[in-house]
Amino acid sequence: MENLFTRRSNASDIFHAIRKAPGISQREIVLQTGFDKSTVSSIIGAFHDADLVEEVERPAQNRRGRPSKGLRVSQASGILVGVRIEADEVRFVGSALDGKPRFRRACRFDGSVDDMQRIFVREIDAIASDPAAGSPLLAVGVSVPGLLRADGVLVHLPVLGWRDVALLDRLASAVKAPVFVGNDGKAGAMAERMFGAGKDGGDFIYLFSGSGVGGAMVLDGQVYAGADGLAGELGHIKIVPQGRFCSCGASGCLSAYLSEPALCEEIGRLSGDRPEDFATLRARAEAGDPSTLTVLESAGDVLGTAVSSLMNIFNPNMVLLGGDLSLARPWIEAPMMRALQRLAHPAMAERTGIRFSELSAQSPFLGGVALALDGVTGRTATNETARMAGEADNEEA
Amino acid sequence: MENLFTRRSNASDIFHAIRKAPGISQREIVLQTGFDKSTVSSIIGAFHDADLVEEVERPAQNRRGRPSKGLRVSQASGILVGVRIEADEVRFVGSALDGKPRFRRACRFDGSVDDMQRIFVREIDAIASDPAAGSPLLAVGVSVPGLLRADGVLVHLPVLGWRDVALLDRLASAVKAPVFVGNDGKAGAMAERMFGAGKDGGDFIYLFSGSGVGGAMVLDGQVYAGADGLAGELGHIKIVPQGRFCSCGASGCLSAYLSEPALCEEIGRLSGDRPEDFATLRARAEAGDPSTLTVLESAGDVLGTAVSSLMNIFNPNMVLLGGDLSLARPWIEAPMMRALQRLAHPAMAERTGIRFSELSAQSPFLGGVALALDGVTGRTATNETARMAGEADNEEA
Repeated sequence: MENLFTRRSNASDIFHAIRKAPGISQREIVLQTGFDKSTVSSIIGAFHDADLVEEVERPAQNRRGRPSKGLRVSQASGILVGVRIEADEVRFVGSALDGKPRFRRACRFDGSVDDMQRIFVREIDAIASDPAAGSPLLAVGVSVPGLLRADGVLVHLPVLGWRDVALLDRLASAVKAPVFVGNDGKAGAMAERMFGAGKDGGDFIYLFSGSGVGGAMVLDGQVYAGADGLAGELGHIKIVPQGRFCSCGASGCLSAYLSEPALCEEIGRLSGDRPEDFATLRARAEAGDPSTLTVLESAGDVLGTAVSSLMNIFNPNMVLLGGDLSLARPWIEAPMMRALQRLAHPAMAERTGIRFSELSAQSPFLGGVALALDGVTGRTATNETARMAGEADNEEA
Repeated sequence: MENLFTRRSNASDIFHAIRKAPGISQREIVLQTGFDKSTVSSIIGAFHDADLVEEVERPAQNRRGRPSKGLRVSQASGILVGVRIEADEVRFVGSALDGKPRFRRACRFDGSVDDMQRIFVREIDAIASDPAAGSPLLAVGVSVPGLLRADGVLVHLPVLGWRDVALLDRLASAVKAPVFVGNDGKAGAMAERMFGAGKDGGDFIYLFSGSGVGGAMVLDGQVYAGADGLAGELGHIKIVPQGRFCSCGASGCLSAYLSEPALCEEIGRLSGDRPEDFATLRARAEAGDPSTLTVLESAGDVLGTAVSSLMNIFNPNMVLLGGDLSLARPWIEAPMMRALQRLAHPAMAERTGIRFSELSAQSPFLGGVALALDGVTGRTATNETARMAGEADNEEA
């Protein structure tokens, strides 16, 4: 009954078991994951061939024992690049297989698809040919704050007004490295599952705010994709009937009350002085500005309303709040908890731990790295052909 | 990697493959389900031993061929009983393994747990000892309109004011048949997956209205349970901030606008003449009563708002509307579709088929039968011990 999908998912579990416990033995991996010995052995073989893992000496377990071999993630096997497309910048993060950032770059662009692609190709080519960046370049993961279909077509990216862009085709055909693309909510949840609050396993709901509000559901250990890969648009749950207009085209969405532009706009209307971005907003909150505190209080209430709906729908172990929601914790947590007490069923509220992402503050752009790493482990285990320029060229030749 | 959970789920798929295509061969089942030959053969063996399936002659496939053996659901192997606990009645439906209802009974009760249990025991004992009902009694499935935890504890049943009732323990220890209990939304979705609009497979979201509003999510082929088995409380998505009080204790829930009591109450306030139940309400709508039509128009809008949120969360292939929602289709469909056009993302709306349950009108109480059948096939395949009086007695003896 093992299919490609299961094998990809098992590969990811096995890789992260090794990443989290350097020196782990194959036998321990079998016990920990519950997978067949043959499955574990075959996937680790593929990882070895691709140089993703390496052997390491384990100290003897007891006095009479001999040192044995364990596994760890390869220390010098190349880099992953995470890319994030934002309203006016394209950001790049380089990381080794352990997920720890090694370098960061941000490049402004003019908001067009062509300019984004030009910058993407320039930077990825530069990274790939720079020995100091760490080589080889294993994979590139690109996260976008918009509706991205499973076939790699960007259906709608509100902050840039893009519609129906063949994103994967355009990027993957332009560079000589495997490219993986994903919605930023799903990529963020994947990063939390690999490196953050979700790493101990278990289902959770991820909700974050930035230029918009997004999220993802990790159900039965996997990011739930839905029919076309579009599931998880938690920022577009309807909160207020006939409410504020939203960048998605509808009205009354959570995002229209909780995104960075929505909060800044509301503070501007109240005070006559619109903060230019979330950093300014936060500085004002720290200084005790009354309009800012009023708006954040109300945002916490709206957030609690949305989270109570999510609890009643999913009965999750954890709701994880990331991005600006995590940074605004000092001001939104109390009103959110009051709304939850009023609106969530007590049996649901009792179960669900509400957590604020620490990854959001420390490593805010790891989503792309998570996409790249998930792509590499999955591809290695299944011998899938990723879409990249080199391979396409060969086929055409 | 096969575990008990997977085996239960595979058993269900195999049983229904046989049920839907009488005469199917083992080879065809392997091809259709994609499961291992050994898995299919072992589960069918268990079904044979339990007399759930039987062999049947298949006509020769071609002129030179000989007749071969196929499988079908046993024609005389016993009955399943579905039970539904409602505000003032306990309803019983008897069915053979094919899911077709054979008899129905409804017994009024005084609303106490003790009286419900007394009636349950009396009726189940009567059915079990009545050869005309069809014997043996294979299993009993009990569906309840409330929060039921995976351990069989009824956390809250709003229409009856019950809290923390050890429902499974009480019922299973009182009769000599395996008893399975479930929330009515999940049971209804299971029935739709076995016998109704969900039978061709694929994920769907089920939403229904009756004394309350409930639902379930069928994700990756399974009813999603959440951490404690409480997931799927789609009637308690928040629709209106600071809105109407709901029987769950919160305010602004979908159920407070769309349940039978909510609709009747609102018509009563408008017209001064509260319809006593949904049948009366429907008769008035058919007669063109303006207050009733106004309330149903507004209910359709509220429903569309909730469905747009569900589409944006799940990107489902299908949203299936059951119970009163199905019966009210002539009046709520148009306003619902207008709300969806306004509120759902076009890419989501394009994917999701909105369907009205036919099972709701024809066989409204099959949820309990679905629970019983799921319990029997799962238990047979895994050799699990169901909880029933006979076995408990033996252990004590």
